[in-house]
Amino acid sequence: MKNRKHNSVISSRPIDAATLLSRNAALLTDYLARLMVRYPEAPAGLMQAIEYSLLAGGKRLRPALVLESAKACGGEDGASALAAAAAIELIHTFSLVHDDLPAMDDDDLRRGRPTNHKVYGEAMAILAGDAMTTIAFEILASDASPALVPALIAELAHASGPEGMIGGQVIDIDPKRPANLADLQNLHRMKTGALLTASCRLGALAAGASADHLAALDAYGRHLGLAFQIVDDILDQTATAEQLGKATGKDAAKGKVTYPMLIGLDASRREAQLALQSALDALAPLGEQTEPLRALAVFVVERKM
Amino acid sequence: MKNRKHNSVISSRPIDAATLLSRNAALLTDYLARLMVRYPEAPAGLMQAIEYSLLAGGKRLRPALVLESAKACGGEDGASALAAAAAIELIHTFSLVHDDLPAMDDDDLRRGRPTNHKVYGEAMAILAGDAMTTIAFEILASDASPALVPALIAELAHASGPEGMIGGQVIDIDPKRPANLADLQNLHRMKTGALLTASCRLGALAAGASADHLAALDAYGRHLGLAFQIVDDILDQTATAEQLGKATGKDAAKGKVTYPMLIGLDASRREAQLALQSALDALAPLGEQTEPLRALAVFVVERKM
Repeated sequence: MKNRKHNSVISSRPIDAATLLSRNAALLTDYLARLMVRYPEAPAGLMQAIEYSLLAGGKRLRPALVLESAKACGGEDGASALAAAAAIELIHTFSLVHDDLPAMDDDDLRRGRPTNHKVYGEAMAILAGDAMTTIAFEILASDASPALVPALIAELAHASGPEGMIGGQVIDIDPKRPANLADLQNLHRMKTGALLTASCRLGALAAGASADHLAALDAYGRHLGLAFQIVDDILDQTATAEQLGKATGKDAAKGKVTYPMLIGLDASRREAQLALQSALDALAPLGEQTEPLRALAVFVVERKM
Repeated sequence: MKNRKHNSVISSRPIDAATLLSRNAALLTDYLARLMVRYPEAPAGLMQAIEYSLLAGGKRLRPALVLESAKACGGEDGASALAAAAAIELIHTFSLVHDDLPAMDDDDLRRGRPTNHKVYGEAMAILAGDAMTTIAFEILASDASPALVPALIAELAHASGPEGMIGGQVIDIDPKRPANLADLQNLHRMKTGALLTASCRLGALAAGASADHLAALDAYGRHLGLAFQIVDDILDQTATAEQLGKATGKDAAKGKVTYPMLIGLDASRREAQLALQSALDALAPLGEQTEPLRALAVFVVERKM
């Protein structure tokens, strides 16, 4: 039952999630920066708009999940995991740029800066998002091990598409959007959960993981995704815009249903802790190499931004 | 010099381009329709918006180029070519849906029907376009032969991205867009040419073509792409909206530079014929199996819609 003793494991062998995130983010940023020069014939304005959002920082949680999931499976193929980490960050960033558009959530602030369309205009923001998607699939096809490419692309594309992230956003902008807990969980599972789960699965696939390890990371990712979204709902209600780098209280203002609205703040915090515990439990089959993934899961629940 | 005798070849062994297009379109539509049911958990409204534009007809020129290029290379792998044909039609359709948006070309009419955002709203049109992209890459990764997937995806993604179609659209919506012939050719090469060339290259790749055959189809695609765009410019000036199924005269109304504006209608028609001849000449290394590709090239230049 070692997997249930996550607190003592973490305190006896402390891994600082912030250090973990920044170490992986540095790897990623270096790779992304080299990526941008691969398109010398592209219009300069387009590449600037892409870089503005892509290199704006952010927690880089998804790439960290890819890279640490690959390591937890004993993956030696750093190139495939790094390409997958960059691809998923490109897809995530494209979704933020499009979600912020006036026709969607109409947000002015993201990662502490004006949103992409506020700086470059709506047309360029749409096209920058479109281009981030094609770049994501291009680098995965070009830089990952060829034998892994079909599974990696199918995984990323499915998680991003109609039954995943984009489908979730469609539900989220529907005026007749969910009003009960089951519907809200379904929305979160698609809009945010699919890509977080895919991050873990991509890491496992890049490492050539066994079916058992892939299943373990799939479960970890699903529980982590749920915890992430509950905490997002809590922070939208309790944090300041300065802390989050984006507008807060927007869910309520838009009449969007959230965990705290449905079950209250205290019960939401308990649900987040339960989801965290389930995520940690799911790592059991992976054995000893799971401290970084544990630290990331704890970070997701305890974060203030 | 058989390749220079295209007129006599076509008249002695007539292949009706319309029949060729409709036969390939039927294969494609059947595949696309089966594709739509692969996403049972997707929001129904999203799939309707995708189907509205994807199954709206159109010439299906790009899929025909993929399938006939594969056949011209003696390709037996129909599954890979069909997946590539569908993927490129998805990417093409996504680009039409996004280009028609109010923030871009602000078009009300496409393929004889109201544009996607006119029917489903701006947000859904953006998301439907986004989803068509992820579906394109997913089906290519899932349905093509695994060994071909990396090259097929890299080809499609690059042609769609910053140095291809999306980069071309960025230039096209730039108020300081090109005003001379060299710049106009560059714009066309990116915005329209990249995907038409990729159609031919994808067919060759799906057929496991030799480097010589790939190069021949690359050249054919580039010349065909140029001819296509010159004719598009001519039709925008000379055809009626009813013939084209979309608004005409829009280039001039928006101050966009076109071939007829720069060199006149007669010279534009001559340039289109020269590009056609170059496309036909490029097919020489492929030998005897090129009648369908010849017929498609002639169709591109002689079409009235």
